[in-house]
Amino acid sequence: MKLWQKSNDVDREVERFTVGRDREMDLYLAEADVLGSLAHTRMLHAVGLLGKEDLDAVQRGLKTIYREIAEGKFTIEEGVEDVHSQVEFLLTQRVGEAGKKIHSGRSRNDQVLVDLRIFLRRQLREIVGQCGELFAVLQQLSEKHKEVLMPGYTHWQIAMPSSFGLWFGAYAESLVDDAEMLLAAYRICNKNPLGSAAGYGSSFPLDRKMTTRLLGFDTLDYNVIYAQMGRGKTERVTAQALSSVAATLARLAMDNTMFLSQNFDFISYPAELTTGSSIMPHKKNPDVWELIRGKCNLLQGLPNQIAMMTTNLPLGYNRDLQLLKEVLFPAIADLRSCLSMAAFMLGNIRVKEHILDDPKYDYLFSVETVNNLVLSGVPFREAYRRVGLDIEQRRFRPQRQVHHTHEGSIGNPCNDEISALMQQTVERFDFGKVVSAEADLVK
Amino acid sequence: MKLWQKSNDVDREVERFTVGRDREMDLYLAEADVLGSLAHTRMLHAVGLLGKEDLDAVQRGLKTIYREIAEGKFTIEEGVEDVHSQVEFLLTQRVGEAGKKIHSGRSRNDQVLVDLRIFLRRQLREIVGQCGELFAVLQQLSEKHKEVLMPGYTHWQIAMPSSFGLWFGAYAESLVDDAEMLLAAYRICNKNPLGSAAGYGSSFPLDRKMTTRLLGFDTLDYNVIYAQMGRGKTERVTAQALSSVAATLARLAMDNTMFLSQNFDFISYPAELTTGSSIMPHKKNPDVWELIRGKCNLLQGLPNQIAMMTTNLPLGYNRDLQLLKEVLFPAIADLRSCLSMAAFMLGNIRVKEHILDDPKYDYLFSVETVNNLVLSGVPFREAYRRVGLDIEQRRFRPQRQVHHTHEGSIGNPCNDEISALMQQTVERFDFGKVVSAEADLVK
Amino acid sequence: MKLWQKSNDVDREVERFTVGRDREMDLYLAEADVLGSLAHTRMLHAVGLLGKEDLDAVQRGLKTIYREIAEGKFTIEEGVEDVHSQVEFLLTQRVGEAGKKIHSGRSRNDQVLVDLRIFLRRQLREIVGQCGELFAVLQQLSEKHKEVLMPGYTHWQIAMPSSFGLWFGAYAESLVDDAEMLLAAYRICNKNPLGSAAGYGSSFPLDRKMTTRLLGFDTLDYNVIYAQMGRGKTERVTAQALSSVAATLARLAMDNTMFLSQNFDFISYPAELTTGSSIMPHKKNPDVWELIRGKCNLLQGLPNQIAMMTTNLPLGYNRDLQLLKEVLFPAIADLRSCLSMAAFMLGNIRVKEHILDDPKYDYLFSVETVNNLVLSGVPFREAYRRVGLDIEQRRFRPQRQVHHTHEGSIGNPCNDEISALMQQTVERFDFGKVVSAEADLVK
Amino acid sequence: MKLWQKSNDVDREVERFTVGRDREMDLYLAEADVLGSLAHTRMLHAVGLLGKEDLDAVQRGLKTIYREIAEGKFTIEEGVEDVHSQVEFLLTQRVGEAGKKIHSGRSRNDQVLVDLRIFLRRQLREIVGQCGELFAVLQQLSEKHKEVLMPGYTHWQIAMPSSFGLWFGAYAESLVDDAEMLLAAYRICNKNPLGSAAGYGSSFPLDRKMTTRLLGFDTLDYNVIYAQMGRGKTERVTAQALSSVAATLARLAMDNTMFLSQNFDFISYPAELTTGSSIMPHKKNPDVWELIRGKCNLLQGLPNQIAMMTTNLPLGYNRDLQLLKEVLFPAIADLRSCLSMAAFMLGNIRVKEHILDDPKYDYLFSVETVNNLVLSGVPFREAYRRVGLDIEQRRFRPQRQVHHTHEGSIGNPCNDEISALMQQTVERFDFGKVVSAEADLVK
Repeated sequence: MKLWQKSNDVDREVERFTVGRDREMDLYLAEADVLGSLAHTRMLHAVGLLGKEDLDAVQRGLKTIYREIAEGKFTIEEGVEDVHSQVEFLLTQRVGEAGKKIHSGRSRNDQVLVDLRIFLRRQLREIVGQCGELFAVLQQLSEKHKEVLMPGYTHWQIAMPSSFGLWFGAYAESLVDDAEMLLAAYRICNKNPLGSAAGYGSSFPLDRKMTTRLLGFDTLDYNVIYAQMGRGKTERVTAQALSSVAATLARLAMDNTMFLSQNFDFISYPAELTTGSSIMPHKKNPDVWELIRGKCNLLQGLPNQIAMMTTNLPLGYNRDLQLLKEVLFPAIADLRSCLSMAAFMLGNIRVKEHILDDPKYDYLFSVETVNNLVLSGVPFREAYRRVGLDIEQRRFRPQRQVHHTHEGSIGNPCNDEISALMQQTVERFDFGKVVSAEADLVK
Repeated sequence: MKLWQKSNDVDREVERFTVGRDREMDLYLAEADVLGSLAHTRMLHAVGLLGKEDLDAVQRGLKTIYREIAEGKFTIEEGVEDVHSQVEFLLTQRVGEAGKKIHSGRSRNDQVLVDLRIFLRRQLREIVGQCGELFAVLQQLSEKHKEVLMPGYTHWQIAMPSSFGLWFGAYAESLVDDAEMLLAAYRICNKNPLGSAAGYGSSFPLDRKMTTRLLGFDTLDYNVIYAQMGRGKTERVTAQALSSVAATLARLAMDNTMFLSQNFDFISYPAELTTGSSIMPHKKNPDVWELIRGKCNLLQGLPNQIAMMTTNLPLGYNRDLQLLKEVLFPAIADLRSCLSMAAFMLGNIRVKEHILDDPKYDYLFSVETVNNLVLSGVPFREAYRRVGLDIEQRRFRPQRQVHHTHEGSIGNPCNDEISALMQQTVERFDFGKVVSAEADLVK
Repeated sequence: MKLWQKSNDVDREVERFTVGRDREMDLYLAEADVLGSLAHTRMLHAVGLLGKEDLDAVQRGLKTIYREIAEGKFTIEEGVEDVHSQVEFLLTQRVGEAGKKIHSGRSRNDQVLVDLRIFLRRQLREIVGQCGELFAVLQQLSEKHKEVLMPGYTHWQIAMPSSFGLWFGAYAESLVDDAEMLLAAYRICNKNPLGSAAGYGSSFPLDRKMTTRLLGFDTLDYNVIYAQMGRGKTERVTAQALSSVAATLARLAMDNTMFLSQNFDFISYPAELTTGSSIMPHKKNPDVWELIRGKCNLLQGLPNQIAMMTTNLPLGYNRDLQLLKEVLFPAIADLRSCLSMAAFMLGNIRVKEHILDDPKYDYLFSVETVNNLVLSGVPFREAYRRVGLDIEQRRFRPQRQVHHTHEGSIGNPCNDEISALMQQTVERFDFGKVVSAEADLVK
Repeated sequence: MKLWQKSNDVDREVERFTVGRDREMDLYLAEADVLGSLAHTRMLHAVGLLGKEDLDAVQRGLKTIYREIAEGKFTIEEGVEDVHSQVEFLLTQRVGEAGKKIHSGRSRNDQVLVDLRIFLRRQLREIVGQCGELFAVLQQLSEKHKEVLMPGYTHWQIAMPSSFGLWFGAYAESLVDDAEMLLAAYRICNKNPLGSAAGYGSSFPLDRKMTTRLLGFDTLDYNVIYAQMGRGKTERVTAQALSSVAATLARLAMDNTMFLSQNFDFISYPAELTTGSSIMPHKKNPDVWELIRGKCNLLQGLPNQIAMMTTNLPLGYNRDLQLLKEVLFPAIADLRSCLSMAAFMLGNIRVKEHILDDPKYDYLFSVETVNNLVLSGVPFREAYRRVGLDIEQRRFRPQRQVHHTHEGSIGNPCNDEISALMQQTVERFDFGKVVSAEADLVK
């Protein structure tokens, strides 16, 4: 037990363990951190805690740093603990003592809280945008191939006629509901925790409504203890929304790998987008879809990971929470690349026509035939008996046309109505408000 | 390998395995099933698939069954497979052949889908109501005890003054965000899947908008494949909303068990609500809170369980989905009993005053003292140095009063503002529409 | 906040909440509880804490109760809290005051701990037995169908020739590794926690080695705090072992549903074991396999559920732990019924021969052809070029025979070697020791 | 949908998406990859597929690369896909054509399988070693502080006397059971999958028993399909073992943060190992333990993440499996750093003596007093009544000495017996065999 003697090594090891991937993760937060400081300092001035001259110097300095971040020129230097220190350090270098005053009336705790909110709402906005693009691709494909039939399965058994129009359209509509989850996460994130200090507020006469307005937040996390509780909760709620999109993508990926299997052979992709082999020319490994499936299934477990880390923690900030950044941030990046790759792949999909000509799909049409007889006046039982008999005596001849007319069916996929639902949901985000508030801050 | 010969045993075993807990679970769906049939048959009549006389007979019969269910007189008989069969069986017994016609134009698949939606939106409504009650209790406690100070912790270390007003109020505000998740789940559930048949639609000229209106749904799940995909997704999304409430309760329970420990001794409960021992009179085991914590932590894993069961399933209905009922339904009942027990316990909580008189909490006030010096004009560094010196030389005397004024702080917990947020969120559910649609159907 | 006034309702509600499903769950533990008491009382006598006469009365009484349990005549009466009370109550009714003395030197905590260990090791033994039966079925099928070829897939693309012999044999071998996990769980369970009292030991001069020997445990959980920590850990470790078996079954079920799809059509089952439709005669819904898949995927999440409930709990017994029974016990029953249904289904499987005659599988053999050329002396690159050219010019003719000879390959599946591995693993459980100890206790 | 036109960008994006973190992850496998090739090529020579001269060249080249890896001089170059290609590339550069022949008779699939096994068994060996070190620290602390009493809790209520001897010793014993899980994982990993090719074997006359022997594996994964199924399973089983150790560490960390809270104040650490503040001199934030807790709780969810990614995948290799490396490898590194930091922290722990002198702990001793009366002949009920009365009338005077003598109790913690259990378990790993096999290969 002499471990403690080698104190330099120890310091380094403890340092490495506690800093972890913080510097790397904090880079994600750099723009948000500057936005938070721009608003915070304007409020400090308004309540008399920062002089006009200092304010001007600090605002100028912060805006310069913001631009440098946007241009990719910002790094967190070795030896600097986190993004907050790096910004303060740069600022002080450039504008002198005034730079040190930006930390009045806040603590690292509410600073990182507000950074996270600004960062997460922006990521959610980007994700909603990407979902919209994927939605558009899916709806175009649905319209384009709406006449092309394919088998529909229940219990993985050939069951009923379906269509590519329905298949693509289903995933578009799935994204509408995913957007509802994203909206809940967005609304929970888009509340201002700044001013909660270390989770118990402060004796400074802060104007939290002012920073709320300046940063474009919908409202405040009023209660300072609740604002602190938001660490972990915001991440979990965001992860739940991500997992909803991920579930849609994972399922879409599963279908793609299945339909590409030679045993289905419903779709194909240009050779450049699959991996093959010259002596197995039939082989088109759908690596991209497999990776989307894998990554998105992993993302489905993300809320559970966050719950595991935050369950039964004592009230107030605990250092465990710092680790959430390295759990959540790469996951967001993963989901975004999956969304982009899925849209790209679908942009190149080719669907097979005449799939149902294969006699193995004949019985698909038996229910249709029964229903048509019913509609023509034959009682259901009699119709059913007749078709059953025809099949038994191998006289059944499928009518390979399908006339479905009700809402959402093969002949009437209602893509316009679904598109309207998506639009309504996206409008409820009210992104414009945040975008212009942020623009005002940095201009 | 002669297992197959004992065919009677086999049949029974296979039957038992496949039926599982279905009869028990389907009881939860009975009212919903009748509501769905009431709407479906009115639509069948409207599109010419059910005669006026049959409609009248069927409507009367179904309304009678609905009342019997409400009065607890309904059971699923041994040998009857599920709730749908039981309702149809009773109906046919009572109104004759007409009873058999209610199944036209739908399949078990969309029937159970619509039952689930009606059931889940009702449960979500109840849960929102219970959250509202708990919210009210928490806000009352926050107001009542808003002057009573307690220590605030970071890293589980005594850090800053806090108050019971803040503590109770934080959990109230947490429920506001949980309501946002419940709203997302509610909106996703409150869409009509009826008419999607086995997941691929039907050749009958169904009027899906009519059943949507009759059942009070916001809109349809248009695409029939997506309607079927909703099985699993609806449950997962609901489970995510439940898990959000559960996380709030679990944390509240954790705090309660901690504050009841003699090492904190911040609160107490009447002896009847804890478990004690005559030779350990100090011992007040908080069994109720421990069970709330345990049940709610289990609920936090629920979305993961559902994801595990639905990941990578082939497109279309698969029998695995049937098991979701026994995963989700008891969990809903558990959350509801936890909400009710939590409100009940809090209704009997007693808080300790003068906790901070204990000298171990003296340093809580050191940050306050520094800030007050700053506000009185002393530069921050100087103030900090002075207080540090006082502490080092054991001259530090805490001023045990706290003057926090900003939004959400000890002196200004903003419970009214938080209450307004809750009310706005609850209004967005628009429960009235569903309640009156359901009332119209059965009147 | 007058909730507390309706005190009778309250008592009932609190009672119902805290008792929960305890009576139901405790029935699983009844035999184990009596075994524990048989050993405990013999030890109490040996260390002088129970007289000879009392011992004799108690032993006779307990043995009678044990037989009643085995005959299904035992119930936990309404109003009796748990199995321990019920046994003590029955005993005291029958043998008088002596019955009350069996509780000396132990607490409910170590009593339920030892009950759980006895129960879990028995369930693990049964599961190992069932795995052995399934293993035998799989090996027989592997031998029987070892010549029957089927396609092998990578990336779900047709890739290489495989065989039913390999397919069945793979799942047999999977069970060998699962048995390793079961062994670890068994070894961890098969340690004696009795004597740890409430988790901090006791001033009575207990002879814990004696109860260890009498109950057939391998050794003790020595440290009394660790014995108590075992609650939650034992369950998690058991759940991990169950989840390993479940993963094997879920995958086997997935394969079965896939191979039964008409798009593969590799296997079939007697109509009685699938669900069909007279107008869709091709449809054979594999409900049993789908339910096995669903239940086993749920079981894969079980360790996570247990971790969620036990993470960050304060040291020592907490009431949350009581809920583990209702999480774990039904899961054990589910896994056992899945094992039994899987063996039963496989006992009736029929495999298709000549699958590979379908031209879509021709390219399966291209790698074979290249390798055969290489073995006949053609350099690899040249062989590869030639076969590629043949394929390109549509001259490739697959040789539909496969000569694989190495260990574990199509021609040499090594079922005997795998069987030997299974036997060695099963022997390491040393079940005989426990069986005879338990038999001695009750004889 | 013109995405496809910008083909260069596309290629780059697809490439980046599919390669992902492979190069980084594969570095972990470099040594293992070379060991596998050393064995594989000796086998190829033995069965006549590689000439003597080629063998000699290749062995020399590989041994050089092995040394370079050990010396940290090996990298996977930009543009080289993975570790297998990099090794082959280097080898061919140095020994010419012979380098290309090492890939005969295997595929990437079994190559990465064997690499993983060699890597994982080594990591497991290291982890067992680190557990052994932590075990030793814990046992030393248990012996050193075995007389120092502390309160024992149930329901987080002060319940019974406990001791630091028991507390430290409990965690040591926990590691004994964790070692059992590590052993199961080790045994499952330590089987040879090499020779399974792409999961369906090969027509080459491979001698799989020879590579098994050369690589020091216990036995083979015989069945080639099962060998391929091992991907995902091996990782999950390893993750389960890691999660078991992680659960022990997380709980130990939780205790430490609790005991460091001023409300307990049972232990302390040198100021250098906690984070403080000059104006809150009491504050000793236990960041290291908080991070251990957070990381280890995350690790507890790891098996679930792996299950989520592998559930319901089609039989045979799927690209999703590649992602397991980036899920598992950093987790292994995290656990190892947590083990090391936990041992280091404990090496510096200071325990408080005389904790129980505080009157709030008086009732701890009431059970003791009752038991002592019983042992001196007073009937239990009478003893209980007397102590209860004394307490009620405030006459109760705790005897602050504890005489527990049974196995595992305060007075008899049985650390030697527990140490013997640990040793027996570690011996069953039989690490020597693998170590000397690997040494033989590279010498």
